[in-house]
Amino acid sequence: MSGFALQAYLKERRALVDAALERALPGEDVPPPTVHRAMRYSVMAGGKRLRPILVIAGAETVGGTAAMVLPTACALELIHTYSLIHDDLPAMDDDDYRRGRLTSHKVFGDAVAILAGDALLTLAFRLIADNADLVRDPRSIRDVVAEVADAAGTAGMVGGQVVDIESEGKAISVETLEYIHRHKTAALIRASLRVGARLAGGDAAAVAVISEAGGDLGLAFQIVDDILDVEGNLEELGKTAGSDERKQKATYPAVHGLEASRRQARMLIERAKERLGVFDARSAPLCALADYVFERKN
Amino acid sequence: MSGFALQAYLKERRALVDAALERALPGEDVPPPTVHRAMRYSVMAGGKRLRPILVIAGAETVGGTAAMVLPTACALELIHTYSLIHDDLPAMDDDDYRRGRLTSHKVFGDAVAILAGDALLTLAFRLIADNADLVRDPRSIRDVVAEVADAAGTAGMVGGQVVDIESEGKAISVETLEYIHRHKTAALIRASLRVGARLAGGDAAAVAVISEAGGDLGLAFQIVDDILDVEGNLEELGKTAGSDERKQKATYPAVHGLEASRRQARMLIERAKERLGVFDARSAPLCALADYVFERKN
Repeated sequence: MSGFALQAYLKERRALVDAALERALPGEDVPPPTVHRAMRYSVMAGGKRLRPILVIAGAETVGGTAAMVLPTACALELIHTYSLIHDDLPAMDDDDYRRGRLTSHKVFGDAVAILAGDALLTLAFRLIADNADLVRDPRSIRDVVAEVADAAGTAGMVGGQVVDIESEGKAISVETLEYIHRHKTAALIRASLRVGARLAGGDAAAVAVISEAGGDLGLAFQIVDDILDVEGNLEELGKTAGSDERKQKATYPAVHGLEASRRQARMLIERAKERLGVFDARSAPLCALADYVFERKN
Repeated sequence: MSGFALQAYLKERRALVDAALERALPGEDVPPPTVHRAMRYSVMAGGKRLRPILVIAGAETVGGTAAMVLPTACALELIHTYSLIHDDLPAMDDDDYRRGRLTSHKVFGDAVAILAGDALLTLAFRLIADNADLVRDPRSIRDVVAEVADAAGTAGMVGGQVVDIESEGKAISVETLEYIHRHKTAALIRASLRVGARLAGGDAAAVAVISEAGGDLGLAFQIVDDILDVEGNLEELGKTAGSDERKQKATYPAVHGLEASRRQARMLIERAKERLGVFDARSAPLCALADYVFERKN
């Protein structure tokens, strides 16, 4: 996006989110310390904070502010983090590294890693409840709890993860691959944008547009993730490149080839930005974020 | 309680809860079927439905009805069930049997068991959101989400489980034992009563009394559980008796002896009933439930 200073925007929003996460997570000395250390270890490991920033951008697109949606923005990051901790477990993907550091279970053991994930998911809903004080219509909290639960549950993220695990080492159809991507990753990304817009008072028509754009963006994000896994290296990704291939994971490049995958991601990004055109200048951050999803190197 | 037909009460309320759970859980044929089968396998395994019945009894004590609180009652059962699935995992307590059947991970594998637990916790919050349509003040949903999250998270159930796991095989203090029991079990039982009363429109004073009684009842429940583990057998408990001892779990009888444990549980039950006296006849179901917590054989 010509004219929009995305790097400064990301830096500022990330700082807001990081400070809010710092406040939201129990201190490492609060009993029982082990689980609080494990929660902080994974949440504070860095990461792009893409989902919370999308919550904020969703709010801004309908005229709201970051302050209105910050607890829910943090909630989405906690849900994302819990899913990574559980996905990395030996019983699931069995990964030793994440974001360039040892995974939770390698540091704290499987039991505490499972419980830290459970606790992050639980705390996420606590934060959404806390958001009631900051919005014009506290009744929207009920809808946000429902939307986030749907996007994180078996109709969304968990559903995608189940099919992903069951598909390992199998030849899968194009439809199954898209099912996995839409559910495992896109559902939560789409929900991030939707709930941001809803909390900020966006009307049904605005939420519907943002929702469509969010679906495109979410799918594009996962396709780019797959491409980066093929191309990337440990330094850039913080995880072992080619790990999807090693685990015989279904990926877009494996099914469609690299070039077609890139074209598909680019098409989705352009379509998302086109949809967002109805918001004029207000959608500048979100459109720049869409480009970033395509161009990012990790 | 003389005059109160507890068995008929329990049977009726259980049927209400079972029917609502049946409606709330996705069908076994809904994709992805594996995780939905696993969710149903554990939730529909029977069980006393104590927590949902306490939600209902909490509502009734302040003049409400079961219909007002049924989704939240189910939510508490889902949270209880998720905690059992995760506790039974090889990485945690490593139990093969629960309620007389193979545990989730023995049937579905560790990965699906972890995800089924995650999905039940997530669905629980969805159900609480759904409860908004049934109550006089939909804003109470926000408080209920917050209360349930606190009772289920590291300030409650997960916190108790962490300390329980860390205490295995160690000599622990009386204080640590009570910490585990109050957090791992009592917190959710207390929350069940509180949110039932809140949703049914109970005022702050009523909720406070019910809350105190709930704390007593919750601790008594866990003490009786410990006693039954020492005394029970596989047939009655559906799990191997003496399993706490085998795993060197901290229990009330191990620390205080059987007789003192029984006296303590009895005292807590009597105190809970005394507190509930302020509600007169309306507290009859809850007082009978308190006696049942002490007298139950499983």
